[in-house]
Amino acid sequence: MMKKFLNKPEAFVDEMLQGILSAHPDQLKHVADDLRCIVRADAPKPGKVGLATGGGSGHLPLFLGYVGKGLLDGCAVGGVFQSPGADQMLEVTRAIDGGKGVLYIYGNYSGDRMNFDMATEMADMEEIRVESYVAGEDVASAPKGEEHKRRGVAGIFYVYKCAGAKADEGADLDEVKRIAEKAGANVRTIGVALSPVIVPEVGRPSFTIGDGEMEIGMGIHGEPGIRRGSLMTADEVVQEMMDQILPDLPYESGDEVSVLMNGLGATPKEELYVAYRKVAEILSEKGISVFKVYVGEFATSLEMTGFSISVFKLDDELKGLLAKPACTPFFEQVEL
Amino acid sequence: MMKKFLNKPEAFVDEMLQGILSAHPDQLKHVADDLRCIVRADAPKPGKVGLATGGGSGHLPLFLGYVGKGLLDGCAVGGVFQSPGADQMLEVTRAIDGGKGVLYIYGNYSGDRMNFDMATEMADMEEIRVESYVAGEDVASAPKGEEHKRRGVAGIFYVYKCAGAKADEGADLDEVKRIAEKAGANVRTIGVALSPVIVPEVGRPSFTIGDGEMEIGMGIHGEPGIRRGSLMTADEVVQEMMDQILPDLPYESGDEVSVLMNGLGATPKEELYVAYRKVAEILSEKGISVFKVYVGEFATSLEMTGFSISVFKLDDELKGLLAKPACTPFFEQVEL
Repeated sequence: MMKKFLNKPEAFVDEMLQGILSAHPDQLKHVADDLRCIVRADAPKPGKVGLATGGGSGHLPLFLGYVGKGLLDGCAVGGVFQSPGADQMLEVTRAIDGGKGVLYIYGNYSGDRMNFDMATEMADMEEIRVESYVAGEDVASAPKGEEHKRRGVAGIFYVYKCAGAKADEGADLDEVKRIAEKAGANVRTIGVALSPVIVPEVGRPSFTIGDGEMEIGMGIHGEPGIRRGSLMTADEVVQEMMDQILPDLPYESGDEVSVLMNGLGATPKEELYVAYRKVAEILSEKGISVFKVYVGEFATSLEMTGFSISVFKLDDELKGLLAKPACTPFFEQVEL
Repeated sequence: MMKKFLNKPEAFVDEMLQGILSAHPDQLKHVADDLRCIVRADAPKPGKVGLATGGGSGHLPLFLGYVGKGLLDGCAVGGVFQSPGADQMLEVTRAIDGGKGVLYIYGNYSGDRMNFDMATEMADMEEIRVESYVAGEDVASAPKGEEHKRRGVAGIFYVYKCAGAKADEGADLDEVKRIAEKAGANVRTIGVALSPVIVPEVGRPSFTIGDGEMEIGMGIHGEPGIRRGSLMTADEVVQEMMDQILPDLPYESGDEVSVLMNGLGATPKEELYVAYRKVAEILSEKGISVFKVYVGEFATSLEMTGFSISVFKLDDELKGLLAKPACTPFFEQVEL
């Protein structure tokens, strides 16, 4: 049974966008007469590298929630769990180019790759220089050594944050891209899910998972994870997740990190903090210090029950960029 | 079936608090060797009226999520859906009194009233002056004319925000209390729920609601609402909710308001924005202008599916206070 607040399922994405634009008119606008082409209200920013993202709907605050001061300049919005079109990406690119070129930062999914590549070619014909960084940091989605196959999930937040702060400093496109690559290389994520989601236009659960079961490593569209098994205690789940993340970079004694505890949709913040308690214990035992902890919903999958853990290894440069203030309708941070 | 990330259900609240304190050590601390007595890390603030709240767990960011700069100074934390004890309230009061007295701001529930009244008497014996404001703005919980019987729900956010900003200006206790009363008198809320919650120590749903049903006006502990019926479209649900709120104050053409679209736990932000689209349409038709819209989780009920709408009528004084910056681990706002 689909219990959702909806009008027509096929109008879901556009009505959501109408709601967002009417709630935050000082911060966001659409361009090209297309609700799915969202940019900062003050775009373009002359003399600043433009940052664009894009992806399917159903993951708020991903993707468009990171459009705003200190973060991104624009976002192409797709249907639920569907890539936006290359034309929409191009419209966003045109609207945010301030003369220093545009960097695309998006998750490693085949539809998004294809469309962003096409948009890059079209922008090139208009003499807008575009570079791309494809985020993929889910350790459950491909083994070490095949990092290029990994899916992009909540850890993309750190890439947006650091690249956004760098672009605000007036850095050129190559330098902003270097920061995006460096941030992306320093983050690892893994998720766990307890329940499926219902895509409004489909009307039934996207997959099934037994009453007493969980799946470790599941992706944000229900992609298969590492293993499905009986639900364990919070401490056991976190231990298994951290056992996947920590050796992968690896994170070692003396490292300083930021941690992102990301709710996938229906899991209460209370449970995220119960889980973080164990994360903190494990990191402390390993001699890894924690600079800043984010707890909340940063990359969701509609009403999925579950969460992900992202660990972001810092150095002075990344820490300085992470600490900068940011402000969008979905994310605010004072200077740390 | 209880699908939650837990260790021992009876340790849920304390483990959550350990997680919160380890995640945000620069912002929060506990006092009196009791995890359930939470105050700002820099408490007490000499020369500032102290603001305290308290209530049951299971509603994050209510209540302790509003402890921080520009908002509150301390919070007594109860078990899930249970009032904290008067002794805990007293410890918080002692820890935040900066010499100008303490204002309690809490929701209108009998257990909380009894315990905060007792704490007030105990503080009085220690010559700490305490005043209280009991928030109650859920229009579904009692009819107009019996406002004193109404439950406090998400609208208490506006009371915290305005009173917190006023206290930061150095205002005295009477003046801060006047603002709390004024803010509380200017807000109305109504909720709708689609699914029950499971309290960890109970282990089964708190109430039942049919597969195709919703309940308009339900409280954040599952208290009965105005009517139960078949699930309607988002627009129909919002229309019925606004028809309860708008005549109650009443809100009229020419008014300026802030709107809070509050997710109760499992409802995705996407759906909150679909709902806000209709709120904006209704307000626009009535000639009511909107200054600032908050969309997210501000007062939850664990994993309940549903949302509430709060409408806050502004004047220059309240608008100025609402616009001030604030920063807690759960809520950040730059100056509007």
